[in-house]
Order: sequence, then structure tokens, then C-alpha cells
Amino acid sequence: MKLATLKDRTRDGMLVVVSRDLTRCVSARPIAATLQAALDDWTHVGPRLADLAHDLELGALPSERFHEHDALSPLPRAYQWLDGSAYVNHVELVRKSRGVAMPESFWTDPLMYQGGSDSFLAPRAPIRMPTEDWGIDLEGEIAVIVDDVPLGATRDEAAAAIRLIMLVNDVSLRNLVMPELAKGFGFLHAKPSSAFSPVAVTPDELGPAWDGGKVSLPLLVTVNGQPFGKADAGVDMTFDFPALVAHAAKSRPLAAGTIVGSGTVSNRDPDGSPGRPVAEGGVGYSCIAEIRTVETIRTGKPSTPFLRYGDTVRISMKDAKGHSIFGAIEQTVSPMTDGGDSGAGNG
Amino acid sequence: MKLATLKDRTRDGMLVVVSRDLTRCVSARPIAATLQAALDDWTHVGPRLADLAHDLELGALPSERFHEHDALSPLPRAYQWLDGSAYVNHVELVRKSRGVAMPESFWTDPLMYQGGSDSFLAPRAPIRMPTEDWGIDLEGEIAVIVDDVPLGATRDEAAAAIRLIMLVNDVSLRNLVMPELAKGFGFLHAKPSSAFSPVAVTPDELGPAWDGGKVSLPLLVTVNGQPFGKADAGVDMTFDFPALVAHAAKSRPLAAGTIVGSGTVSNRDPDGSPGRPVAEGGVGYSCIAEIRTVETIRTGKPSTPFLRYGDTVRISMKDAKGHSIFGAIEQTVSPMTDGGDSGAGNG
Repeated sequence: MKLATLKDRTRDGMLVVVSRDLTRCVSARPIAATLQAALDDWTHVGPRLADLAHDLELGALPSERFHEHDALSPLPRAYQWLDGSAYVNHVELVRKSRGVAMPESFWTDPLMYQGGSDSFLAPRAPIRMPTEDWGIDLEGEIAVIVDDVPLGATRDEAAAAIRLIMLVNDVSLRNLVMPELAKGFGFLHAKPSSAFSPVAVTPDELGPAWDGGKVSLPLLVTVNGQPFGKADAGVDMTFDFPALVAHAAKSRPLAAGTIVGSGTVSNRDPDGSPGRPVAEGGVGYSCIAEIRTVETIRTGKPSTPFLRYGDTVRISMKDAKGHSIFGAIEQTVSPMTDGGDSGAGNG
Repeated sequence: MKLATLKDRTRDGMLVVVSRDLTRCVSARPIAATLQAALDDWTHVGPRLADLAHDLELGALPSERFHEHDALSPLPRAYQWLDGSAYVNHVELVRKSRGVAMPESFWTDPLMYQGGSDSFLAPRAPIRMPTEDWGIDLEGEIAVIVDDVPLGATRDEAAAAIRLIMLVNDVSLRNLVMPELAKGFGFLHAKPSSAFSPVAVTPDELGPAWDGGKVSLPLLVTVNGQPFGKADAGVDMTFDFPALVAHAAKSRPLAAGTIVGSGTVSNRDPDGSPGRPVAEGGVGYSCIAEIRTVETIRTGKPSTPFLRYGDTVRISMKDAKGHSIFGAIEQTVSPMTDGGDSGAGNG
């Protein structure tokens, strides 16, 4: 089953069920008006949505054309957004470029931060920033939405609570990261609103690419239309989603609708060295910080700039047959004055 | 105007308007079913709730008895909970006991962390923890709920967005703090679900005790019925609420319903030394970590233990005439097995 949330002038948008090929949709309003409402009572609502999806796939009911650019993030706002750093390769690389050793414990104890979830950007909304000087970066990631998870959940309980899977662009302001890391209180300024893929899918939609813990497909990232990354989300994921969810629930329950992110997808090169750029035959990167790190390690300084006004990033994932699974996140960096919706950010 | 949210088997509860003396209430359902719904459209809903409050005060409509123990936190779950450390005295003391100097910048650049907001404890709900070994502590604080705040809001814009004021018990697990501070990604395990006062009030309810930026009244904290703290929330607040809100909005908008906390209320002694315990004629403390810090500075080691199963904390605030403004947070620390609602935590 594939779900999306269409713009409708409310903060939470309107839930629709989307066809597998992303061309058609049907309103889920008679069953659940919003995705959060569906998640609040998934035991009852989930099967009814699945029936609707089945009928939509058969062409057994009236449907409308689905346009990815009409979609908000599946949860336009959420009660919780926790982002891990499951691809420890990424963490080690970024720290190496800063000249900081990574503690051995990072291989066994996940990094995770509590992110802002009060308003997410729509998947095609501009990334509006008042200045380019903050070091605007993308982070291509996978995320899951979970049902209620009890405090102290086991790995199995965590795995059983995974309801939906999405892609994320975890927008990051690199030049604001260091002072916040030094304070130790986590990211506030360095992590503005994220954007999620137009469509969230149930795990069964991934077929053999989902093993219950991770998504074994390349995450396709382009910058200004040029291939930038195609790292496999199933490779080098040190902590899979059940591990991340159980980690988050160590000392508190997680409420239905909690989103848990993987952190930037990142693959080592097969020879064990940091990944090479796509142009050199590598799988590339899912954020600019990482290519800058590799450049720094190789030449002493970074050469790829962070994002500038007018730059466009695109994040998507294709199934084995080449069909888009989640639709595409496609965002252009813009100044605040360009269009002007500086409000709740659903743009 | 005073607002509360009553338990009603839904995750968001039922919004009621409460009389100034906290004895009567009336359902706000015809105007807004939940507090978040009211905040989503405060421009229209706020004045209508104020009319209802006016009629309730006059006895001009049927009302029901208000019982604080029927209340959930005013927002039983929220889209954002940001907690500052505005009482820098507290930060300096806690670091001193760890033997860590506080950077000078902490006097001009607020500490703030993104807290979990997916489920808050009810004001009379037990604090259920699987072990006492995590160093269970209370933190008595003030918090505001804001309307939409644009990215880059000025201090004046931030001040104008403050809609409601509450008390908080920001439950903290002290023995989990240090490893998370070292990781730099903020608090995940060390800050489980917080609880808010039974009632949230509009700033005008505080009269002269609210100057547009802070609440100048003592925060009354007891532990097992014994006076533990009565620090004045208007004293030694280095960053007032407009400053905290503007800080939070530096690189992202804040959506309506965002809660911003003050951090632990803490006063220096009039002679400039760390505050003395209430038993010694001081104003005491709003968390146990602080009295342990003072004990460590004085005698080389802490003597007051963190909370144990069965311990009860109470946080309240009285107006100049001695009447409770917000109702009381009153919570008993309990093992997980005692009653058993380990779920969404509204207990």
C-alpha cells in the first residue's frame, strides 16, 4: 500500500491512497482524514486502507490523477522525528575531515538526535534560507514511521511496530553544526525543516528489497541534474531500523506516528577506502559534506561547495524494474524573499 | 483565560475552559475540540474561548466541577517541545560539581535542546521507570506555548506569539546525561516524557507577575511533602521567553503549538553564593541535581539521593493572594510493573 497527503489548506492535508505506479489516487477521507489519524488507530484503519488500495489497483473505484507536486510530506507535521546515524562510515568520514577520532563505541551505540517535527517541507517545496553562508546541505536518508512502541521494547517489538517507509531530505546547515555539537545539547539551528518523499509505503511494497530491517536498493541523489550518489541503503548500515527504534525506546515509549531516520546513506568503496565520486566510477554520496570530506582527505581541502541559491537536489529510489517507489523529493534552494511563505513551511 | 484538557479516551483529550479559581469548567468542544485545534487557528478561536471564559466566570452558563486529577497535560502530545536553560546559575552550578568550567558564551547564547513531545505525562501520572539506577530527577520549570513564529523572528515578534503559560516537570535521568552530552547529539535517553500543569493560562491571568518576558513568582517544589524549592522564576532568568523563542526560530519557523521551556528555575543566594536549602533559610532548588551540586561544593560529595520508587514530587505556583494559578503537578515515581500502562504514557 502506498499513501500520500495532498495539500488542502489545512496543516495536516488530506490522506489519499496512491496506486503502485504512482499515477492514480483515491481519497481515504471516509476511513481516515489524515495520516496521523490513520496511525492513531492503525489496527482498525490499516486493513481498511489496504482494501481501498486493493480496489484502486483493480480499477474498481473512481480515482484521480496523482501528481507528486501536489503532495505534502506524508506527515506534514509529526509528534516525533528521531534521526539516527546508522551508516557509521559517514560519521567516521565526517569526523576524519575535522581531525577528530571517532570513539569505538559509535560502532555499537547509535548516534541519534531529536529533530524538529512541527512542520516539514513538502517534497517539492523550496529550501528557503536567509543566507547561503550557513553551509546548506542535503542529507539523503531512509525513514520509517512506527506504531506505539513500549518503553524498553525488544528488537522484535521494534521491528513489528514499523508501519511505513519513506525517503528524507534532512536539510542541514553545516556551518552551524560545530558550535551546537560543542554545546552538547544537540541540533537546533543546524537542522531546519526536513522534507519527505511524496509517498510513504508499507514494507511489503519493497518485496525482497526489505528484509525487515533495511532497504537494499540504491538511493539516487542528483544535484542540478547531475548524478551525485547511488549508495545502496542496504550496505554498511551498521544499525538497522529495529535497532534504531529499540535504541530510541530505551527510557521512554514512542507514540504512533514517530518517524525514525537512518541518517545519511553512505557506502564504503569495495576496497575499503572512502567511497569515490560517481564520476570516478564510485557510488558517490548522499550529502555534500561527505564529498568535501573525501576531497579534504585526498587534497587537503574541499572543492565542492555547499548548496547555493538556485541549486536543485533530487532524491529518489527505483525498484528492480526501474519504477520509482516513493516519488521524488526535488527541492531548490531559495532566498527567503523569493515567494515569501516563511510561515509553517509547507510551501 | 485558563484552559485544560480532560481525559476522554482519545490521544488529545477534550479541551475545557476552567474558572479562575480552578473549581469549575465548561467544554470548549463547540469551539475547538482540542487545544492543538485551538492553537491552529488562534486568531479566530482565541477570542471565542475568551468569551466562554467570561461567561463561565459570571456563572452565566452550565458548568461542571473541575478536578485537577482528571486533567492530561494541556497538550497531551505536541509537535514541538524545546527546552532552554535560561537560569544560567543552574548550568554553572551543575558544571562546577562535574569539575567542568562553563564557557563565557553561555551567558549570551542560550542552551536549548529539542525534547520528545510525542506523549507527555498527565500532571498526576506516575513517573514509571524500569530502574531507580538511572538517577531519576525532577526539573521544575515554566513553559510557554507559542503561535506560528516566522524564521528569523525578532524579539518583539517572538514576544507577540506567546499564547499560553504552564508549569513543567521535565523529568530527567541524571545518570544517562553524561554519555549523551559527550556524544553531542543532545538528549534522547536522559529526557523521558515530561508532565505539564493541569492548567495553561493566558499571560493576562498573571497580572503584574508577567512583564511580557518572565513570571515573577516563586515556583513551589516539594519532595515527599517537604518544602524543597521556592526560587523566584523572575529572578536570575538570563534569557527571558522572547529571547528563548527568537533563539529557537533563528534558522526555522516554529509552528503553532510549539512549547518552549525555561529550564530549571534557579536563584543565586542574595550574597552571590549558590542558593541555600529551604531548611537553612534559602529558596532551595527546583531539581535534585542542584542540591547535590551544592552539597558536593560544600562537603566534597552529594548527600541527597535522586528519586526512589514511592517518592512524590509536587510543583505549583501561587498568586499574590495565595491561590494556585496552574493547579499542581504531583507525581510519584513507580516501577513499570505497578499498574502497567507503559504505552503512550498519558496514564
